Amino acid sequence: MTTPLRDDQLDRLYADFDRENLLPLWTQRSGLMPTAPASKAVPFVWKWATLYPLAQRAGDLVPVGRGGERRAIALANPGLGGLPHATPTLWAAIQYLGPKETAPEHRHSQNAFRFVVEGDGVWTVVNGDPVAMRRGDFLLTPGWHFHGHHNETQQPMAWIDGLDIPFVHYTDTGFFEFGSEGVTDESTPDVSRAERLWAHPGLRPLVGLDAKVSSPIAAYRWQHTDAALRAQLELEDEGYPATTEPGHAAVRYTNPTTGGDVMPTIRAEFHRLRAGAHTRTRDVGSAVYQVFQGTGRFHLDSGVTEVGTGDLIVVPSWTEWAIEADTELDLFTFSDAPIVERLHFDRTYYPEGP
Amino acid sequence: MTTPLRDDQLDRLYADFDRENLLPLWTQRSGLMPTAPASKAVPFVWKWATLYPLAQRAGDLVPVGRGGERRAIALANPGLGGLPHATPTLWAAIQYLGPKETAPEHRHSQNAFRFVVEGDGVWTVVNGDPVAMRRGDFLLTPGWHFHGHHNETQQPMAWIDGLDIPFVHYTDTGFFEFGSEGVTDESTPDVSRAERLWAHPGLRPLVGLDAKVSSPIAAYRWQHTDAALRAQLELEDEGYPATTEPGHAAVRYTNPTTGGDVMPTIRAEFHRLRAGAHTRTRDVGSAVYQVFQGTGRFHLDSGVTEVGTGDLIVVPSWTEWAIEADTELDLFTFSDAPIVERLHFDRTYYPEGP
Amino acid sequence: MTTPLRDDQLDRLYADFDRENLLPLWTQRSGLMPTAPASKAVPFVWKWATLYPLAQRAGDLVPVGRGGERRAIALANPGLGGLPHATPTLWAAIQYLGPKETAPEHRHSQNAFRFVVEGDGVWTVVNGDPVAMRRGDFLLTPGWHFHGHHNETQQPMAWIDGLDIPFVHYTDTGFFEFGSEGVTDESTPDVSRAERLWAHPGLRPLVGLDAKVSSPIAAYRWQHTDAALRAQLELEDEGYPATTEPGHAAVRYTNPTTGGDVMPTIRAEFHRLRAGAHTRTRDVGSAVYQVFQGTGRFHLDSGVTEVGTGDLIVVPSWTEWAIEADTELDLFTFSDAPIVERLHFDRTYYPEGP
Amino acid sequence: MTTPLRDDQLDRLYADFDRENLLPLWTQRSGLMPTAPASKAVPFVWKWATLYPLAQRAGDLVPVGRGGERRAIALANPGLGGLPHATPTLWAAIQYLGPKETAPEHRHSQNAFRFVVEGDGVWTVVNGDPVAMRRGDFLLTPGWHFHGHHNETQQPMAWIDGLDIPFVHYTDTGFFEFGSEGVTDESTPDVSRAERLWAHPGLRPLVGLDAKVSSPIAAYRWQHTDAALRAQLELEDEGYPATTEPGHAAVRYTNPTTGGDVMPTIRAEFHRLRAGAHTRTRDVGSAVYQVFQGTGRFHLDSGVTEVGTGDLIVVPSWTEWAIEADTELDLFTFSDAPIVERLHFDRTYYPEGP
Repeated sequence: MTTPLRDDQLDRLYADFDRENLLPLWTQRSGLMPTAPASKAVPFVWKWATLYPLAQRAGDLVPVGRGGERRAIALANPGLGGLPHATPTLWAAIQYLGPKETAPEHRHSQNAFRFVVEGDGVWTVVNGDPVAMRRGDFLLTPGWHFHGHHNETQQPMAWIDGLDIPFVHYTDTGFFEFGSEGVTDESTPDVSRAERLWAHPGLRPLVGLDAKVSSPIAAYRWQHTDAALRAQLELEDEGYPATTEPGHAAVRYTNPTTGGDVMPTIRAEFHRLRAGAHTRTRDVGSAVYQVFQGTGRFHLDSGVTEVGTGDLIVVPSWTEWAIEADTELDLFTFSDAPIVERLHFDRTYYPEGP
Repeated sequence: MTTPLRDDQLDRLYADFDRENLLPLWTQRSGLMPTAPASKAVPFVWKWATLYPLAQRAGDLVPVGRGGERRAIALANPGLGGLPHATPTLWAAIQYLGPKETAPEHRHSQNAFRFVVEGDGVWTVVNGDPVAMRRGDFLLTPGWHFHGHHNETQQPMAWIDGLDIPFVHYTDTGFFEFGSEGVTDESTPDVSRAERLWAHPGLRPLVGLDAKVSSPIAAYRWQHTDAALRAQLELEDEGYPATTEPGHAAVRYTNPTTGGDVMPTIRAEFHRLRAGAHTRTRDVGSAVYQVFQGTGRFHLDSGVTEVGTGDLIVVPSWTEWAIEADTELDLFTFSDAPIVERLHFDRTYYPEGP
Repeated sequence: MTTPLRDDQLDRLYADFDRENLLPLWTQRSGLMPTAPASKAVPFVWKWATLYPLAQRAGDLVPVGRGGERRAIALANPGLGGLPHATPTLWAAIQYLGPKETAPEHRHSQNAFRFVVEGDGVWTVVNGDPVAMRRGDFLLTPGWHFHGHHNETQQPMAWIDGLDIPFVHYTDTGFFEFGSEGVTDESTPDVSRAERLWAHPGLRPLVGLDAKVSSPIAAYRWQHTDAALRAQLELEDEGYPATTEPGHAAVRYTNPTTGGDVMPTIRAEFHRLRAGAHTRTRDVGSAVYQVFQGTGRFHLDSGVTEVGTGDLIVVPSWTEWAIEADTELDLFTFSDAPIVERLHFDRTYYPEGP
Repeated sequence: MTTPLRDDQLDRLYADFDRENLLPLWTQRSGLMPTAPASKAVPFVWKWATLYPLAQRAGDLVPVGRGGERRAIALANPGLGGLPHATPTLWAAIQYLGPKETAPEHRHSQNAFRFVVEGDGVWTVVNGDPVAMRRGDFLLTPGWHFHGHHNETQQPMAWIDGLDIPFVHYTDTGFFEFGSEGVTDESTPDVSRAERLWAHPGLRPLVGLDAKVSSPIAAYRWQHTDAALRAQLELEDEGYPATTEPGHAAVRYTNPTTGGDVMPTIRAEFHRLRAGAHTRTRDVGSAVYQVFQGTGRFHLDSGVTEVGTGDLIVVPSWTEWAIEADTELDLFTFSDAPIVERLHFDRTYYPEGP
């Protein structure tokens, strides 16, 4: 019998614990240590049709500049008490830059990327290297790299930002530093210097033989991603093993110096499902998906949501989920899987239980 | 100028953000991304003279058993809003087992250890292997190992538990499973089977050549720790490099299969300072110290506290701190350094700033 | 005084050593353990103008088929006593396949590659995947992969083979197995299936997340190598660090799953020197160079040789050497550096000595 | 049909190959690339009863000193053409030091160890650290560590040396440097400084957190080895998994900073077989065994040899072999397994073939 008598002595003990900044395990255990992850974060879907107009309104009303730094509007998971956290570890936001605007340079320990679901015309300048942002591109700003953005066109542009801000904030591991008010290189090349040095398949420059914590490839271009996915589906049609399951092509963005994830805390992948294909799983760790093109349905626990271009789907840890593709469905996704795996909390899901 | 006019349109925009579960970065940035870690946790000291009597009272009033599982009383950092967290990532508790009591078996993803500041007579049974607990010993229960404890004596025994419970809870990575009501092996050997197989310096059993995430050494015995520290100070006296700084001997508990930390999320070390020696530093990541013997002073930010045997000192991330030894001062410590280092958030502290 | 009297007793002792299969160190030490590597292999240059006609004559006289397996003619370093070894560890050969000929399939532990200095029209079929061979391509056949070649044209084709045959032979680590008499897939696609799956910069297929000892990229195409080198020189012209020294661009062929060398025993690189550029070094381990295009001079110890397209230059361990480019000079090279580095025998060369 | 007509043209071609330092594969292939390793080295046994008296005679006749450096008498495998190589990669020798003699200091890239089958009284001084040599001890001299030996007693002492001399010689990777004529520290402590710093189970000094290519433990003492083996057999008796097969206990000497082999090229282990126990295997790579105590039989290919204390047994790559213990049989062994494994030539043996 573990429940003590709730008598005066016990009340006094608990009061003394409280005064001495102590808490007993036996009253907390089941909440603290559930039989499986029971995230306070909830599965949730944000529609692009909602996000984009709100970002536009912010573009009209809120200047971008030093202090606030970015016109970024973050997904605030309804389960996380009003914090700007998509999941306990991940930040996801729509960032909006008006015509001819510049977001000033800064750097921080937090690892960041951009993914472009539509538009172009902005260059992000990473450690002085201007990187064009175009539809379908995945762009990196690893921790402690200076970066600013400037829009060279008369049109606004919006994209999504993904970072490990909640994780860094929670673990007290972040540093931040302001940089130049403008961008340090205003040129607008088609291809960044990082890509010219690094984005050749299987080739490593001899000046880059030192160990690199994050990928030196500043931009993973859509034409390569698309070609890789198309090749997988064609190989499947020809009868060769290339897809992860029938009709499901997928690539992981990797650090060419290690073959591992692009940054220490963030995994990023791109998936393509043929019309009618479906996939399901359950993972330790949380993820965010964005529909790049096509339509389909996300099953999240017991709910189902129709999704289309630009929609963002948040999947907390250990959520049971599935995707069904109505048309060919292209999905960008990022997650905290490197945190989970490097600390050995990953666990294979078996339908019958952990 | 980044501060927008606080007019009606802006109020409506913020209200719309709120309704759509969105939060702007520009109002949050400075709190979310400080220039250096600004932990909500505060440096704090718990006195053994306070802890132990409270644990005794719990021993009288609260049974130990299935459900509550353990008579463990956790340090609740005053800055962390009443949660049983010593730091954002670490759990530290005093655990108390009365005469002839048994804490039932269970297992969990959370990595755990015990450190014994005084007493003996309890065996912790880890995956069926009975491990005697004695003064000065450091004992492991890596993630997903079944474990229970039983006190074979007529005296109570108390020790400290360290775990990554807050980190696992926050990142939604934990699983928990009940095991046997009693312990699965009630024998009381002096030395565990794990030690007999593994605790020989530099020798690896051929049955243990597979990769091991956590150390297979169930108990790091005081006589080895003490001998290693004594040897370092003697070597220093003989003129050879062996101490980390004058009068400061230190060992890290390691996984003999990798040479790295004992568990994926927790680093543990033992430090010995000669009377009059001192040390100071500042680290990314949080730590807990326990005085094993001797007296001295901890400087934590601007405060100073006298410490003696059993006292627990909590050091949040990026706290400036120093230790001065009045007598020879033996300190056990554990931290979340493996999390920080594996995710590449470690940073060298230079007195002039980051 | 270490030289013993050469008396009868000593003669008898040495005779007894000999009879018992023993050898004293003291008579052998200086030869066995020189102050720096003193290779029996000599620096040497083979001219393409000599090699190619001899390969043609072999094409007329010697059939290719089961048993001999390949019409390959190996460089036999003049210092190595008539063995078919370019260096103590490396094999280098010209291989020649006549019109419509097929070299049958086999596999072996030895790691192999091909490099094509001129011509096309042959497909090498590696584990059933047909890989077109074209000018400038670097093609892999890692250990224990089945492979055969077939010439689809009415012209002969020649290329160079590089393997670790001498090393494997010396260390007794090799296995060999015959395969199909013909090739198992006679199709002639422009691009291999391996490239379609793997040769996308920074993208890893989700079906290929397992650890891979050797690169899964079957062919490193000339257009990528050339583009990478051109970009380095352009970046140099623009003022950015990209070349290893002025006018010297270089890439290493790597395994995209690790960022390391393509195969466990063989490193391969491509270097481009501008007209007038030069480079010099001295390495532990041996290497072979082939001029791809351009002309220049190799200094090897005290000798100098003019080199041009197709010429093969062998550089034994610890040879002092230098290259001067007369025109833009493109050089393919391979070496045993992974053996040296994985076993920690690498050593930085300082001009003043080891 | 791959055998060409042996006509004049072909003779001329082969003569031209020869003149141009070329060799055709097709006449060499089967010897160069056998279906399984066919070592020129042969399995062989050297008897201690033969070795020791010859070493004694050398002690009487041959001084030890600068130039010859060591009174070491190497096993010369009868298959290896009179070279002082136990196997193609390994050197094994008996070294003998007379009363009060000193072997001068030197260092070399070659990795070395000593194993003491009987006697004591010599200190080996490794990078200035005196290390007592006693029966059953395994002592390291990793590459490029200065070392000399001095006998402090009036008795001679002999032990075995193991090195990678043949491998280093063959691959041209070795450097050698003379050091002090005497030893740089003539003190005779029971325990070396390296052991005082490093030989504590699972404890790493904080001054030793840098990566180490070789083990920093200068001496693996017999009492630890013996205790580890005894524990395994006792655990087996108690019904727990601890032995590699029934009656067969075994430990690998490891680098505590990695958990891997003690040196980059050499693996060392100690095996204990109960009377009546037996073991068999077949490995890629070569090994040397020395009987430490007990008697038994080695089956090597089709032969059988009785062995006893001090006898040395050489096992070339891919030899089928077995051991039968007549009494409790203690065996020290070393091999080139790290070379084989780091270069991925290891292969599991299945009785039915590769």
